[in-house]
Amino acid sequence: MTVPFEQWMKSVQATVEEALGGYLPAANAVPLKLHDAMRYTALGGGKRVRPLLLYAAGDLFGADAGTLARAACALEMIHVYSLVHDDMPCMDDDALRRGKPTVHVAYDEATALLVGDALQAQAFMVLAEADAVAPARLVGMLRLLAHAAGSGGMCGGQAIDLDSVGLMLTLEQLEQMHQLKTGALLRAAVVLGALAGADLSAEQIKALDTYSKAVGLAFQVVDDVLDATADSATLGKTAGKDAAANKPTYVSILGLEQSRALAEKLRCDAHEALAPFGDKACRLRQLADLIVQRKA
Amino acid sequence: MTVPFEQWMKSVQATVEEALGGYLPAANAVPLKLHDAMRYTALGGGKRVRPLLLYAAGDLFGADAGTLARAACALEMIHVYSLVHDDMPCMDDDALRRGKPTVHVAYDEATALLVGDALQAQAFMVLAEADAVAPARLVGMLRLLAHAAGSGGMCGGQAIDLDSVGLMLTLEQLEQMHQLKTGALLRAAVVLGALAGADLSAEQIKALDTYSKAVGLAFQVVDDVLDATADSATLGKTAGKDAAANKPTYVSILGLEQSRALAEKLRCDAHEALAPFGDKACRLRQLADLIVQRKA
Repeated sequence: MTVPFEQWMKSVQATVEEALGGYLPAANAVPLKLHDAMRYTALGGGKRVRPLLLYAAGDLFGADAGTLARAACALEMIHVYSLVHDDMPCMDDDALRRGKPTVHVAYDEATALLVGDALQAQAFMVLAEADAVAPARLVGMLRLLAHAAGSGGMCGGQAIDLDSVGLMLTLEQLEQMHQLKTGALLRAAVVLGALAGADLSAEQIKALDTYSKAVGLAFQVVDDVLDATADSATLGKTAGKDAAANKPTYVSILGLEQSRALAEKLRCDAHEALAPFGDKACRLRQLADLIVQRKA
Repeated sequence: MTVPFEQWMKSVQATVEEALGGYLPAANAVPLKLHDAMRYTALGGGKRVRPLLLYAAGDLFGADAGTLARAACALEMIHVYSLVHDDMPCMDDDALRRGKPTVHVAYDEATALLVGDALQAQAFMVLAEADAVAPARLVGMLRLLAHAAGSGGMCGGQAIDLDSVGLMLTLEQLEQMHQLKTGALLRAAVVLGALAGADLSAEQIKALDTYSKAVGLAFQVVDDVLDATADSATLGKTAGKDAAANKPTYVSILGLEQSRALAEKLRCDAHEALAPFGDKACRLRQLADLIVQRKA
């Protein structure tokens, strides 16, 4: 019998939280302040969207629990490091994240810089130590993670984002930026989860890519809608900051109503892409729904 | 017939420069500014000490040229990213590196942050794509690189270094800091080069570790001596900055003469460790000599 979605989600989140606690450097290992700050920022918060996608895709391909935990933690470490660096004064200069003071506020800027750097290395270490998966497949997973994190993925998206402040972007340019900035890691989540279980055919990768792309864009559209409509307490981060920073968003280009309609269309696209997988893809479908219908 | 050391060194440096040019993102690929800055900082300079050690160890174990080039570029990208971040205002706030303006000066701080982040990901990507080596051995090389780069290696050393400004360290504490901050990557260079050629026995790893440890410390002792005695033009970076920043150094603890004697002792230790490898280790011996006898 399949457990209800809410319960499955809570169980994945708890599993990832515990695994992260184990895969981060111990709090009593030297250098203490660096390790303390790494644990401060990575533990005890976050929706764990990427790990949820990864576990959902892993379920579909029968991945083993240990490999999923390592891949999920690696991906979450990359995500968390990007938030720590993104919040620094030379980037978004943000004081609040997941309802807590950001790392450069709670510690200092130099520590925030090193926390991000060390989390990225830790991510590759944790994944490279996944010894339940065949080495050749593991090498493929490591390549995928590196590509998603680098200048052809997340870092590239950040750079385009920086360069676009104050510019009028077309919808296509905005989409391209988000496909890199947030889309690359969301896609990596789905494909890493699947690869944790099996070698994939070209058709399977294509279907998962179509799903990821739709979910990734929907995630960003909803983010922009929430940034324009929700308050900081609900979001756990500073609301309205994109508009204040004069950054182009879906809401600034399409308006609220059309943005909501786009998110709904993308949700349907995501469902459609999963058709070949049948009922077994129910967790991925439920996550697409959650990502579009969330309130924070 | 063996080519003279100088000629071998120049040829490795040229090989690495060319390989780096190919393994960095193309200058005409979006995002242009990020890629331009990555190439600006990684190409056209540096002594390439880590690649030299890597090639020397690779020679000893018969590694193939393609794997060596990938491993050397990966390691150099990690080293270069650490310099970019280390030079930022929240760390050492340095304006000059390898005789050129640092990245945050030539571009801006946000770009410097992203350049470092993207170079780290690129390093893992370039190594993960080394397909001439057996996947199981490659996974081991990736683990080694991640460990050397992270909080148990280079980043951890940086953190200890930050925390030690203004403190009186003992010789042992200073040594521990440097074993992580610079020693971890130098050791990785030697072991990665060897692993590019063959699986290693425990005795071989131990001998290479002893060599690396001696060379790594010697490198730092000589760095401190040069920082205290050479000028910025010769060094290609700001001289005297450690003393100015009130950072503990070998010179501040031991004085100049004892520091020089220590470097010489470490050079002999390095030679001794190589005894089991016989004449075939001549490049590693020559590099130990170079590291201790360099003037910049």
